[in-house]
Amino acid sequence: MIEYYEISGCYILRPLAYYVWETIQGFLDQRFKRNGVSNCYFPMFVSQAALSKEKDHIEGFAPEVAWVTRSGTSELAQPIAIRPTSETIMYPSYAKWIHSHRDLPLCLNQWTNVVRWEFKHPTPFIRTREFLWQEGHTAHATTEDADKMVYSILDYYAECYEELLAVPVIKGRKSEEEKFAGAYYTTTCELYVPANGRGIQGATSHQLGQNFAKMFDVWFENKNKQKEFIWQTSWGFSTRSIGSMVMVHSDNKGLVLPPRVAHIQVVIVPITQKDNAEILAATEALYEQLKKLGVRVYLDDRENYNPGFKFNHWELKGVPIRIEVGKKDLDKQEVRVVRRDNGDKSQMKHSDIDSEIPQLLERIQRDMFDRAKEIRDSHYKEASTWAEFMDALNGKNIVLTPWCNDRECEKQAKDKSKEESLKLMEEAGEEEEQLTGSAKTLCIPADPKTPL
Amino acid sequence: MIEYYEISGCYILRPLAYYVWETIQGFLDQRFKRNGVSNCYFPMFVSQAALSKEKDHIEGFAPEVAWVTRSGTSELAQPIAIRPTSETIMYPSYAKWIHSHRDLPLCLNQWTNVVRWEFKHPTPFIRTREFLWQEGHTAHATTEDADKMVYSILDYYAECYEELLAVPVIKGRKSEEEKFAGAYYTTTCELYVPANGRGIQGATSHQLGQNFAKMFDVWFENKNKQKEFIWQTSWGFSTRSIGSMVMVHSDNKGLVLPPRVAHIQVVIVPITQKDNAEILAATEALYEQLKKLGVRVYLDDRENYNPGFKFNHWELKGVPIRIEVGKKDLDKQEVRVVRRDNGDKSQMKHSDIDSEIPQLLERIQRDMFDRAKEIRDSHYKEASTWAEFMDALNGKNIVLTPWCNDRECEKQAKDKSKEESLKLMEEAGEEEEQLTGSAKTLCIPADPKTPL
Repeated sequence: MIEYYEISGCYILRPLAYYVWETIQGFLDQRFKRNGVSNCYFPMFVSQAALSKEKDHIEGFAPEVAWVTRSGTSELAQPIAIRPTSETIMYPSYAKWIHSHRDLPLCLNQWTNVVRWEFKHPTPFIRTREFLWQEGHTAHATTEDADKMVYSILDYYAECYEELLAVPVIKGRKSEEEKFAGAYYTTTCELYVPANGRGIQGATSHQLGQNFAKMFDVWFENKNKQKEFIWQTSWGFSTRSIGSMVMVHSDNKGLVLPPRVAHIQVVIVPITQKDNAEILAATEALYEQLKKLGVRVYLDDRENYNPGFKFNHWELKGVPIRIEVGKKDLDKQEVRVVRRDNGDKSQMKHSDIDSEIPQLLERIQRDMFDRAKEIRDSHYKEASTWAEFMDALNGKNIVLTPWCNDRECEKQAKDKSKEESLKLMEEAGEEEEQLTGSAKTLCIPADPKTPL
Repeated sequence: MIEYYEISGCYILRPLAYYVWETIQGFLDQRFKRNGVSNCYFPMFVSQAALSKEKDHIEGFAPEVAWVTRSGTSELAQPIAIRPTSETIMYPSYAKWIHSHRDLPLCLNQWTNVVRWEFKHPTPFIRTREFLWQEGHTAHATTEDADKMVYSILDYYAECYEELLAVPVIKGRKSEEEKFAGAYYTTTCELYVPANGRGIQGATSHQLGQNFAKMFDVWFENKNKQKEFIWQTSWGFSTRSIGSMVMVHSDNKGLVLPPRVAHIQVVIVPITQKDNAEILAATEALYEQLKKLGVRVYLDDRENYNPGFKFNHWELKGVPIRIEVGKKDLDKQEVRVVRRDNGDKSQMKHSDIDSEIPQLLERIQRDMFDRAKEIRDSHYKEASTWAEFMDALNGKNIVLTPWCNDRECEKQAKDKSKEESLKLMEEAGEEEEQLTGSAKTLCIPADPKTPL
């Protein structure tokens, strides 16, 4: 999916990965537009003055900002930042464009790259210095309208994870400590990663209140000719989601791709002993047949590799269905069908291919979601004492526990859990990298008992 | 279409302009994919070492490169460039991915932003420090395959200008002096701008030969097990095209948008004397009717503006069709239809709207192209002496003239024409900004007599 690059923290998204991103773009963009959002493009450069206008916001981002100081061989008069996000780039224009209640709502979105020069260990997709995302920024006349937008978007994000990426989410609100720098509140989709037993943030949608409006002086005249500050939202979905999807579905043979986002959904492998013209002709016909059905299909007719090599190659790349065509299959007017997600092998009659392959792709999509949800649900535990809490954490669970949303209390719980699990690990002789018992606040679930 | 921004040379693409870009993206992307090109994403950062690897190439871009030297408050160990184009970013990976003739062709494209920190006077769309584009980079086993790709892409670019943007182009090759830095040859679409009587480059598609392959050591084993360098192409279409379209079609009332790229194709203006419920209801019904037809329609029912203000407002924004609904029209079961491109006004029966509005949009699209082509063709002159050449230039024409494709000779013609026209203008007391008589080489047309 990715290729490494000479600059640390930057990765190349190869077509396989970029295809997932294009599918996500199509899915979300359609929903945004249906909800009255238009696309636009703001510059990626921002001056220090604009960037620093909202105090909490700049504190959140300052350490990770990349600065351009030179062009050609000339020093710039003022260093210029590359966007880590675009609130401070966009809102001065909102002040120019919004005058009356008739100018609201103003709902804009952009698909861009952003830069956050992190110093933690970089990880493909998950922690990268440049990444791709969409960022939506809307302005409303009332806090209720802003709330409504925040939650519509959160629903789209959840649908994108569940329907496209086959990843179940828990919707909720972030704690005060974890919310977006400068936001009134932050809503989030949280995922569960079985491999390390930890939660990971899927995407966030923020109610900004009137905080930025006051800083950037964005107000409108309401119906009673009174001046009011606008209510704002911002929300983003990034290529990080691809990494989360990979972590949720992969197995020890490599990637497992949900059919809806797989660049190649079906790979055909002819089982030939060199130059078997009959089988090659049959696979070519099958290729055309599936293509006509709208299936994304690839025929691996390379002569210099044997079938076993090809099986491994396409398993590693996560192609949902492999179809093998050998002499025996051909004689029986059948093909052999192998599922990547669970390894199931079956014979399929030629006459059934048209109806069954598209159905099987949908079944795999559903099964992948159901399996991920079952695993997630079995790692969703309640705890009401500290001992229960630590047990659940160390058992690689997401823990539902009562709390006060107090910043100090949250910090204490994080520190204490980290300390205790470090001790446990030292005793067991494990590496800190493996640490699971350290608590991280995911969210205050919208519906605690049935997270979906 | 755009909003000014605090950083010089950077502009905001508002939804109206971005819609044009999205339409172009859809149009080209589909054609690229049909031709076997996949999308991907490479980082926007590049090290000095990689950027400088091809000598002619870096000489072409070095003065305009923006450099990141700081992250947060830390100086970077090595300054890092922001891509002005991605040849030097992508080709090291091509060297990793290409080994055998079976790995070819490798056809990748990306939709990105690029930065060229120009110091000339910035102009929205046309000369901006950050702009959006697609850049395609393909690798082939033979120079013939590369040629074929170069010319397919040039055809797509020409189709995009002519079919979407209603702008006629002249296809041809760039001179040695004007070709892309590091290319074997450059093909181009050239446009004619009536307002200033000058040509402007539409988009270019380059045959890179084996030049970059040798620098980046990208070779493959051919069918005879011999090592050969790959043949490459690169090609780009940018948001500059939107500026060219604006210059070709605008008039003194403002923008004129071709229907196929207009965010709003039809605006409905009710002609009411305050609170005329019957007319408002009729315009709402008409709005729903057109929406159902798939027309991009907007109902301007703002109460605080009079119809005359609205007419000007939407003319300025270039909306192709205005529909007015007044009491008299309603009584006759008609609407008044006004074309933006030529000002034609006509009455249309309610019963004809379903069939005639979509047809009219197509007719406007065609008429805009035909009109632009007629003007362009009438400014396409042949010249075989220097005097004829200068006369044609000063008459705001594109000039077809025999020449030798010698760099020195080209430079002389440019200098001499500039000198002579400066003198002419001084005598006439005109400003240098108006200069038209200075020659610029556009291209060696593929078909000189019939440029289309």
